[in-house]
Amino acid sequence: MELKIRPINIIPNYITHPEGSVLIELGNTKVICNASIEDRVPPFMRGQNKGWITAEYAMLPRATEQRNIRESSRGKVGGRTMEIQRLIGRALRSVVNLELIGERTIWIDCDVIQADGGTRTASITGAFVALVLACGKLVEEEKVSQLPITDFLAAISVGVSPDGEVVLDLDYEQDSSADVDMNVVMTGAGEFVEIQGTGEEATFSYDQLQKMLQAAQAGIEQLFTVQLEVLGDLADQIGVQVAKETEEEK
Amino acid sequence: MELKIRPINIIPNYITHPEGSVLIELGNTKVICNASIEDRVPPFMRGQNKGWITAEYAMLPRATEQRNIRESSRGKVGGRTMEIQRLIGRALRSVVNLELIGERTIWIDCDVIQADGGTRTASITGAFVALVLACGKLVEEEKVSQLPITDFLAAISVGVSPDGEVVLDLDYEQDSSADVDMNVVMTGAGEFVEIQGTGEEATFSYDQLQKMLQAAQAGIEQLFTVQLEVLGDLADQIGVQVAKETEEEK
Amino acid sequence: MELKIRPINIIPNYITHPEGSVLIELGNTKVICNASIEDRVPPFMRGQNKGWITAEYAMLPRATEQRNIRESSRGKVGGRTMEIQRLIGRALRSVVNLELIGERTIWIDCDVIQADGGTRTASITGAFVALVLACGKLVEEEKVSQLPITDFLAAISVGVSPDGEVVLDLDYEQDSSADVDMNVVMTGAGEFVEIQGTGEEATFSYDQLQKMLQAAQAGIEQLFTVQLEVLGDLADQIGVQVAKETEEEK
Amino acid sequence: MELKIRPINIIPNYITHPEGSVLIELGNTKVICNASIEDRVPPFMRGQNKGWITAEYAMLPRATEQRNIRESSRGKVGGRTMEIQRLIGRALRSVVNLELIGERTIWIDCDVIQADGGTRTASITGAFVALVLACGKLVEEEKVSQLPITDFLAAISVGVSPDGEVVLDLDYEQDSSADVDMNVVMTGAGEFVEIQGTGEEATFSYDQLQKMLQAAQAGIEQLFTVQLEVLGDLADQIGVQVAKETEEEK
Amino acid sequence: MELKIRPINIIPNYITHPEGSVLIELGNTKVICNASIEDRVPPFMRGQNKGWITAEYAMLPRATEQRNIRESSRGKVGGRTMEIQRLIGRALRSVVNLELIGERTIWIDCDVIQADGGTRTASITGAFVALVLACGKLVEEEKVSQLPITDFLAAISVGVSPDGEVVLDLDYEQDSSADVDMNVVMTGAGEFVEIQGTGEEATFSYDQLQKMLQAAQAGIEQLFTVQLEVLGDLADQIGVQVAKETEEEK
Amino acid sequence: MELKIRPINIIPNYITHPEGSVLIELGNTKVICNASIEDRVPPFMRGQNKGWITAEYAMLPRATEQRNIRESSRGKVGGRTMEIQRLIGRALRSVVNLELIGERTIWIDCDVIQADGGTRTASITGAFVALVLACGKLVEEEKVSQLPITDFLAAISVGVSPDGEVVLDLDYEQDSSADVDMNVVMTGAGEFVEIQGTGEEATFSYDQLQKMLQAAQAGIEQLFTVQLEVLGDLADQIGVQVAKETEEEK
Repeated sequence: MELKIRPINIIPNYITHPEGSVLIELGNTKVICNASIEDRVPPFMRGQNKGWITAEYAMLPRATEQRNIRESSRGKVGGRTMEIQRLIGRALRSVVNLELIGERTIWIDCDVIQADGGTRTASITGAFVALVLACGKLVEEEKVSQLPITDFLAAISVGVSPDGEVVLDLDYEQDSSADVDMNVVMTGAGEFVEIQGTGEEATFSYDQLQKMLQAAQAGIEQLFTVQLEVLGDLADQIGVQVAKETEEEK
Repeated sequence: MELKIRPINIIPNYITHPEGSVLIELGNTKVICNASIEDRVPPFMRGQNKGWITAEYAMLPRATEQRNIRESSRGKVGGRTMEIQRLIGRALRSVVNLELIGERTIWIDCDVIQADGGTRTASITGAFVALVLACGKLVEEEKVSQLPITDFLAAISVGVSPDGEVVLDLDYEQDSSADVDMNVVMTGAGEFVEIQGTGEEATFSYDQLQKMLQAAQAGIEQLFTVQLEVLGDLADQIGVQVAKETEEEK
Repeated sequence: MELKIRPINIIPNYITHPEGSVLIELGNTKVICNASIEDRVPPFMRGQNKGWITAEYAMLPRATEQRNIRESSRGKVGGRTMEIQRLIGRALRSVVNLELIGERTIWIDCDVIQADGGTRTASITGAFVALVLACGKLVEEEKVSQLPITDFLAAISVGVSPDGEVVLDLDYEQDSSADVDMNVVMTGAGEFVEIQGTGEEATFSYDQLQKMLQAAQAGIEQLFTVQLEVLGDLADQIGVQVAKETEEEK
Repeated sequence: MELKIRPINIIPNYITHPEGSVLIELGNTKVICNASIEDRVPPFMRGQNKGWITAEYAMLPRATEQRNIRESSRGKVGGRTMEIQRLIGRALRSVVNLELIGERTIWIDCDVIQADGGTRTASITGAFVALVLACGKLVEEEKVSQLPITDFLAAISVGVSPDGEVVLDLDYEQDSSADVDMNVVMTGAGEFVEIQGTGEEATFSYDQLQKMLQAAQAGIEQLFTVQLEVLGDLADQIGVQVAKETEEEK
Repeated sequence: MELKIRPINIIPNYITHPEGSVLIELGNTKVICNASIEDRVPPFMRGQNKGWITAEYAMLPRATEQRNIRESSRGKVGGRTMEIQRLIGRALRSVVNLELIGERTIWIDCDVIQADGGTRTASITGAFVALVLACGKLVEEEKVSQLPITDFLAAISVGVSPDGEVVLDLDYEQDSSADVDMNVVMTGAGEFVEIQGTGEEATFSYDQLQKMLQAAQAGIEQLFTVQLEVLGDLADQIGVQVAKETEEEK
Repeated sequence: MELKIRPINIIPNYITHPEGSVLIELGNTKVICNASIEDRVPPFMRGQNKGWITAEYAMLPRATEQRNIRESSRGKVGGRTMEIQRLIGRALRSVVNLELIGERTIWIDCDVIQADGGTRTASITGAFVALVLACGKLVEEEKVSQLPITDFLAAISVGVSPDGEVVLDLDYEQDSSADVDMNVVMTGAGEFVEIQGTGEEATFSYDQLQKMLQAAQAGIEQLFTVQLEVLGDLADQIGVQVAKETEEEK
């Protein structure tokens, strides 16, 4: 069981307009992750003195080997896209103190410009950095009192190959042939945020599940190292509030 | 940890037109599951001498406490619905020998007429029975040589309550307050088909994960008992082919 | 001319969440009719101190012999569906005192779970009962001073068979072969609310029209008997206000 | 009871491109009715050696006192429009010998350029003339052996005013205040093709129904006179085949 | 180079309901242009004490040689239509003093009932007259202090034929075969408002461009003559304010 | 009049999957232009032994200062987008020998990842290079006998500032304040392919038009220099066939 992920690179401040922006490269997968701050929340959240985080995900038509029809041309967003954007939004919200950001929406846009497997997990890992950068700007502009991020967050894919081996960080070819495909999202504290394991026309045993979780954890730790480096000083402010609260509770 | 699911009832042949039809009641959750056989496959499957299984899921507008706008009126199927129907289709395909059913599509329609938590897992559990009934008709009419079902299949939800307890088969109220929500789909052989665990604005530990999996397994066994009873003679034909093949391999 | 309708059965309080709910069975046709009360009116009705009643109608995909594509999947509601839901809404509004219900909308959902002819007329007949049940709840909760229902309401289909015979309450087979198809909605006082007679690629004479109206009236009286029984005490409150007003006018 | 309709004018060959085209003016209501011949039938009609007639209806945005949003801008055709186009198509098909026209579709487009009540009935009356003109061209070009029209066809609206009077050919103002609104489509032989009577928040008695039918018949006869004149020689060929067949049967 | 446009005819007050209405005929091209006044502006214009002018363009399905599918049936407005309606709106706004009309929207509807080339330029030329008529009504009703029109406006098409000749006011046949197609919108003062020249699978030289502009100018002057005549007294009020302002500046 | 465009940079082979791909940077405007080859043509082109070129254009939601809603979420492509993609396709087709490429479609995708004015002209300039790269691959793979490109192609924007000055290559700020905005597309031979000049709520004189065309020509020559350099050897094959044909004609 190989426990090393593909080469990873996160370029901060990639696009100039967004409050937070990164290009994340995981092997040949490349995703632009932008975080935009809007000074209001969607109708269902109004008057709760809380913020909201929502995500959108898309691929350029030729991010893939075969050209895909644009969802704007189809006139609707497909099921796979919806699943992914719901996952990204949910995952990010789990490490944000929504009360702290006030009645604001942070829009996360993950646009895959080149795809080679793992686009949804790379999106989460990159979007987390874009989100922290955007929140850093809120702190800088004194719109919020402290960084509203409670912990690090990253995601990786694992799978089971047709010969029964557990594989970490599958590229497109590995993913296409795998029997089982699992996406794992974890926090810096080692807690799970999301586990989605699926055996398309196949199944997996309890033992294989344990091995996949282990591999995922090893991969995610490598992602945290890169996030930490890219975020610099901002990294130190993550979870500070949580630490303080825990302190006070004692 | 309470390891008993809510009262379960499966009424076979509920609607007269479909090839397979059941009403499944799990506590106050009621779902009509119909299986329809169409003598052709979708374009992307043509010429492969294989069948296909696809699922659709919907709720009556007033299946819930608050009336929901119909998706036909909105003009599009929502993200939650798409996620669920993709899950149901994927799960069912994992226990069907698609070569055996030939170039046919089996449409699974799960229509929730009353909702009280666990509608997606009840849909899978009920749809499996409707699917077997429809396949039984194919055997009866000698369109296929044997029942193309390789194993039993059922699903249940588990979660973690705000006080950290693992809860099995959550009703709507429990589900709304739970920190973690997990859906588990398993086969009669005890293999996993799908695990979807999610902590909306919360996380869960490795230990909690293990306990949830254990509870899910206990719940699913109770579902198998009811499926077995309802299916009668057809139950004996499930997996027979698999057994024979395994035999021959020896 | 046979003047008896098919066996009819109305099960009140069929689904737990709606303010009014029935399952109506007319022969093999089965429709769930739910009435939901919303405490506001659509924009075009605001500020008029009146309520509104609106209806939606749908079929489960496999309510019919052949599976129909869901209208949510098509992305639009078809012409036939629109015609039917406009008819149901219009018919019900003719026996409701909209001023009495105040600025509320009553949503009527008619979902056909099994179809064998006459689904639109069964929907009206069943929806009337669901509506009265919902209004009864408004009275019970003292939100309205009295039952805002001015009269009984029911509907039936009649037709002319290819041999020129008038037929009452056509099932799917009769309906498919009929030359003329007519739906009649009447009140308890014997007034017409709606007559829709149509000869698809055929015509009908004045004499046939008279015979169809007569048959319809005979059928509708049978429906009133069942409604009366199901509604129990509530039946006595129907039209009371009308009677009083007529009294006062004298 | 006034039994005279508003001034009526039918201008044949109004637009140059269509195979059949008229402008019909009924009082201040003006409708362009075009008939287009297409040399194939819709999928559900293929291989039956029969033709098909289908109708579309629309209003210019400012045909009415208040500007209406275009249905193309809304992105969907409304319920009222669908009802009307289904009615027009059904009505016309009742007087056409579909076998005679072969595997062709005749598209009827009714575009209201100015509306003052009775647009759907004026559409039917005008569309019938456009249809005969188009069929005349088929005869002329020897694509069909004889005029495939079996009888004349026209439609008119009748209603009941708030003071209980029956009114013929309602203009917009009369229509808005009427308690009951009925559209009647009849053939030259005096048979009914369609009766749609509706009491929006009102009802009507058997006696009122009879009076409305009588008035409608009187109005429709006036329309036939104008159609006869406009159609000239073509009028003589209507129903000839029917007459011959009846003759032969004797 | 022929510098005469096709016979042109503008019938004012063609439809009764709109505030301004004309039928414009340019050769065999016929367009109904209606101007409707609404007493509010779109959201993006609110609170600016200015008006807005927006245009919609459509063709009857059989305005053309081949029947076109309605955009309402397609469920969306096509690219060509959008381009044209944006062009019409932009062109008209260039000769309107939007401050003068106050917070009102003027809707321009151009509906082509018969097409033979030049429908978009005929729409602009006709819409200008309808717009002036509608604004005249605003003056008449003393809702605005003076006619808010700063200059005349008309448009014409020019092109280059396959033999390199410049052609003015192309009909459908000429337009289909032309190598280059250019639409020119000009004001009474001889200024350009819009130039759109396009060589579909062809190009054009600087010299050809100059000749096309010259021809367009000659054609537009002929249109101004007709507009002037149709507008009568209103024509004298066009640009009066501009003249006064220029005067005062001296 | 400043006749220098902003710094320009074209990175070839930017994305790995497409047959042709560039990133074009014009000042702060950045567009990914991908060319994809599909081995069939759209239905309206079949059987003509010719190819087709079609373009799609989009912006990332946060390419701009304010976040834009995705067109996939809106469910439709906007008017501005349609106008731009029609322009790009038309422009490119003017320098391609469609017979030479055979029954193939070349899809051009222009995705703006950062916008600062001139996105449509940068798209054309970049897309031309991507198109040549893709066609080069067709030559390399011996699918076509020679490069089917007849000439260079580039586009630039010009305008008139509020003080009447002609401005070349407007950035977003200049574009927002300009009175007149013109896009010019030209070939290497100095011919015009497309001129679109528009004065939103303003007009321009004949003299200003001439100055704008002059400025545009100067700008486009600078773009040709960069295209030439990036294309290397492929540049030499552009128009070779044309030259040969001209030769032969002598």
